[in-house]
Amino acid sequence: MLTTLEESPLYPIANPKSVAFFGASNSVASMGTNLLLSLQAAGFEGPVYPVHYKEDRVLGLKAYRSVLDLPEVPDMAVVVLPTRIVNDALEACGRKGIRRAVIVSGGFKELGGGGIALERELMEIVRRYDMRVLGPNCLGVANLHRHLNTTFLPYEGPAGFIGLASQSGSLVTQMFDYLAGLGLGFSTAFSVGNEADLDLVDAMEYLALCPHTRVIALYIEGVRRGRTFVEAARAIVPHKPVVALYVGGSETGRQAGFSHTGAMAGPDELYEGMFKQGGIIRARSVTELFDFCWVLGSLPLPKGRRVVIQTHSGGPGAAAADACGRAGLELPSLSNDTVQKLAPFVPHTGSVNNPVDLTFSKNPNDFYSSIPEILLQEERADTLLIYFLTPAPVVKRALQQMGLPPEQVAEQALCLIDGQCETISRLVRTTDKPVVGYTFRSLDDPSIRGLTRRGIPVFPGPERAARAIAALVRYAGR
Amino acid sequence: MLTTLEESPLYPIANPKSVAFFGASNSVASMGTNLLLSLQAAGFEGPVYPVHYKEDRVLGLKAYRSVLDLPEVPDMAVVVLPTRIVNDALEACGRKGIRRAVIVSGGFKELGGGGIALERELMEIVRRYDMRVLGPNCLGVANLHRHLNTTFLPYEGPAGFIGLASQSGSLVTQMFDYLAGLGLGFSTAFSVGNEADLDLVDAMEYLALCPHTRVIALYIEGVRRGRTFVEAARAIVPHKPVVALYVGGSETGRQAGFSHTGAMAGPDELYEGMFKQGGIIRARSVTELFDFCWVLGSLPLPKGRRVVIQTHSGGPGAAAADACGRAGLELPSLSNDTVQKLAPFVPHTGSVNNPVDLTFSKNPNDFYSSIPEILLQEERADTLLIYFLTPAPVVKRALQQMGLPPEQVAEQALCLIDGQCETISRLVRTTDKPVVGYTFRSLDDPSIRGLTRRGIPVFPGPERAARAIAALVRYAGR
Repeated sequence: MLTTLEESPLYPIANPKSVAFFGASNSVASMGTNLLLSLQAAGFEGPVYPVHYKEDRVLGLKAYRSVLDLPEVPDMAVVVLPTRIVNDALEACGRKGIRRAVIVSGGFKELGGGGIALERELMEIVRRYDMRVLGPNCLGVANLHRHLNTTFLPYEGPAGFIGLASQSGSLVTQMFDYLAGLGLGFSTAFSVGNEADLDLVDAMEYLALCPHTRVIALYIEGVRRGRTFVEAARAIVPHKPVVALYVGGSETGRQAGFSHTGAMAGPDELYEGMFKQGGIIRARSVTELFDFCWVLGSLPLPKGRRVVIQTHSGGPGAAAADACGRAGLELPSLSNDTVQKLAPFVPHTGSVNNPVDLTFSKNPNDFYSSIPEILLQEERADTLLIYFLTPAPVVKRALQQMGLPPEQVAEQALCLIDGQCETISRLVRTTDKPVVGYTFRSLDDPSIRGLTRRGIPVFPGPERAARAIAALVRYAGR
Repeated sequence: MLTTLEESPLYPIANPKSVAFFGASNSVASMGTNLLLSLQAAGFEGPVYPVHYKEDRVLGLKAYRSVLDLPEVPDMAVVVLPTRIVNDALEACGRKGIRRAVIVSGGFKELGGGGIALERELMEIVRRYDMRVLGPNCLGVANLHRHLNTTFLPYEGPAGFIGLASQSGSLVTQMFDYLAGLGLGFSTAFSVGNEADLDLVDAMEYLALCPHTRVIALYIEGVRRGRTFVEAARAIVPHKPVVALYVGGSETGRQAGFSHTGAMAGPDELYEGMFKQGGIIRARSVTELFDFCWVLGSLPLPKGRRVVIQTHSGGPGAAAADACGRAGLELPSLSNDTVQKLAPFVPHTGSVNNPVDLTFSKNPNDFYSSIPEILLQEERADTLLIYFLTPAPVVKRALQQMGLPPEQVAEQALCLIDGQCETISRLVRTTDKPVVGYTFRSLDDPSIRGLTRRGIPVFPGPERAARAIAALVRYAGR
C-alpha cells in the first residue's frame, strides 16, 4: 500500500513536467494529432516534444527526428504509432532514459495471435529499461487539475472530484461533456487499456491518495488481480467511496469485453462477491456509475434509510414514493410537531403525509425556504428528496401578467429563479442531512442549473434519485 | 366499444368549439388564471367565456357575471373554483345546458370525510343534467392538434403522436417540455383526476380512435373498472400499442397514490396480471413510459430479438452488449457475407464481432452510410443499435486544422454534421428494420438533435435503448 501520492508509479504519468509525443503530425486524419490537440487545448504548461520522422514542426511545436535528440529526458512518452513500430519507439525511449509511457496504439493482446507476442515483446522492453507503462490500447490520462489531457476529445467543463479508472478509453474521454452537463468533472481519469503493466488496482491506489478525488469510479470488463483488487478496495473504502460498473456479467457483455481489451470476464456472482468483500458500491449502468459518484462525492451521509419527499405535484410525488420503495428506502409518516409546523404552508387540497404535497402554492418562495427548513428538522427522516419545477416560461408569464415592462421580464425571471436556488442552497449548507432533487425539466433549465452548480444534485426522474440515495445509505451503513 | 371518435363522451371535451371558464381572474396568483393563460397561449380558436362574479374583463376577454348570461351554450366548462362553490357552478352549467365539464378544483374524495359527500353531491348534479365530467382534482385536457390546453403550463414544442391518459395532472402538463426535449409531443393528453365520472378507460378508448395517436401511454395509481380496462386494452392493442406505468405497486407508492387521487391501489402482481391479459407493455418509470412510446410510435416492428450493435468505441459497445443481454435481447455473430462486406471499412484494431467496433475511422462518413447499410442487410439481426458520437468540438477542430477560415468553421461543422444525419436517416427510411441510437452526448447536441428530429430515436445511455428495443420486441411478439 502506498503512503504518499508521489510513490505511485502513476504519479509521473498523471503529473508529468514534460512529455515526448509519438504519432502526432499535422494531419487531423491521424489519431495522434487529435490527442496532441487535446493536450494543447487543455493548456498543458510543460514542454511537449513531438517526435516525427520527417516533419520539422508539428502543430506549431518543434519536432524531433528521434527521441534521442530531445534536449531533456521527459517524464513520460505518449505513443500513438502504428502497431508495428511501437516497440522500436519504446526501446528508443528506454535508451533515452524515459521511465514512463502511455501506449495508446492498439493491435496487441486484444487481437490474439501475433498481437499476444507483440505485447510480450513490449513488456520485455519495459522490464529491461525499468519502465512502467499504461496500455497498450488505451487513451492515457486526464488530470484536469494539472491541465493534462492525452485523450481523444478536448475537455469541456471544469475539473471536478470524480477519480476514474477505466478499462475503456471512451468511458474517459466521452464522459467529459456528459459530466459537464451534470455540473461535474473528473479529478484524474486513467484509461488502463490492456493493462500489460499498470492496471486498475494501481489507478485505484493513486486515486485513493489524490487530494482532488472525493470518490472513485471504476469501469470494469474483467479484473486481473482479484485478491489484490479486493484488498486495495478494503483499505480505501473506509476513507473514500468506490463505485464500480462491471459490464462482463451477461454473456453478451462478456464477449464484447473480450474483443475490446482481451479481458477475461467472470460470472456475475464472482464480481458481486468481490465488490461486497471490498465494500464497493455496484452500479448497473454508466448512468448509475456517475449518479452514485455525484451523491457520494458531494453530500453528507444519511443516518438511515428514511426519506421525506417534498413536492407540489401529486403524480411526481407518487412516482418518487414508488421509486423509493423499490430502491429499499422508507417513507416515515411525519411527527405531529412537523405536521403542525407545516400547517400554515399547506393548502387544504395539499397533503402533510409523506410525500408532503403542497399542490398549488400562493407563495412559491416557501417551497425553497420555510418548507424544506421544517422538513430538515424532522427527526424521523434522514434524507430530504425534493421535486423541482420552476419553469422559466411560467415565471415569465407571471411577471408579464403583473405588469412588468416586457424588456425586463426575461432578466427578472432569471433573477427570481436564481434567488430561489440561492435560498435553498444556503439552507442546505446549514444541515448535515443529504438533500437530493429530481425533475423532469432539462438539467440545462436555469431553475435546475442554479441548483446543480451550487452543489445540490438534481436527477432526471425520481428513480435515479432514489437509487442514488440508496447508494449513499449503503455506503453509510457499510 | 366505440366505433367513431365522435361517439366518445370525451369528444366535446377534447374538441370543444367554445368554452366557459370559471375561476380565472386577472391575478396570476390564482390557479384558474394560469390555466386560462395556457389556453390562450395554445392559440385556441373558438370563443372563451370567463365567468367572474365582479370583473368585467378577464385576461382581455369579456367576462360574465353568470354562466346563464352567455350568448351561447358552450361545448364545455372548465371549473377552477374554490371547492365550496364548485357544485353551485356546475348546477348553473347544467341549467344553461352545458353537457361537458372539466372540474379542476380539488378538495373532494381524495381528502376523505366531507370531501366524499361533496363528490357524491357533484355526481348527483352531473346525472340530473345528463352531463359528463372529467375530474374533479384534475388538470383537464391538452389536444395540441386543436390548439387546446387547459393545463397549468404552456405547451412548449410541437404536437406529436403520444396519447396520454393520466391519473396525475402534473404528468400531463409537466411532460410538455420533457417530451419536446426528445423531439416528441402529445397528440391528446387527458388528466382524469378522481375519475368521479369519466375515467382512464374512457380516455383510452378515445385515444384508440384518435387519428393523431400512434401509441397510448397510461399513468396509473389505481384502476377502478378492472375488467372493462382489460377488455378495452385487448380490443385496442392489436391496432395500437398501449404502455402503462403503475406507481401503486410498492407500499410507499400505494400510500402516496391514495393521498393524491383517492385511488385504491392493488398488489403489484394483480396489475402485472391485468397488463399481461390486456397485452399492455409495462414501464417501470416515467422515463421508460415515454421511451417505450417513442419507439412503439415511430419504428417498424422487429421480427425477433436479435440485435446488431455498431460502435466506434469499445467501452460504450461493451456496455450496450451487456445492457442488451440484461434486457433479454440476443447478439448474433455476423454471417460470413457481412464480415466480408465490412472488411474494407474496419481497421485491423477494430472488430467485426458483434458489437461491430470501428475504433478510429479515417472516413467518418462511412459510419453513417456504408456500414449501417451492410448491417441492415444482415439476415441474422432484427434491429440495428448504433452508438452516436460526433461531437461538434471535434468536427470544428478538424476543420480548423484543415485550414478553413475561422469565421466559417462553426457553420461548416453544423453543415457536415447535418449531412451525416440526413444520410443515415435516408438509409433508415429504406428499411423495414428498426434503427435505434444511444449516446452520452446531450440530446441537444446538433449531432443528436439532427437524428431525433428526423425520427431516429437516440437514447441517453445504452440501457434505455436496450429496454426500449425489448419493449418493441414484446409488442411485436404479443
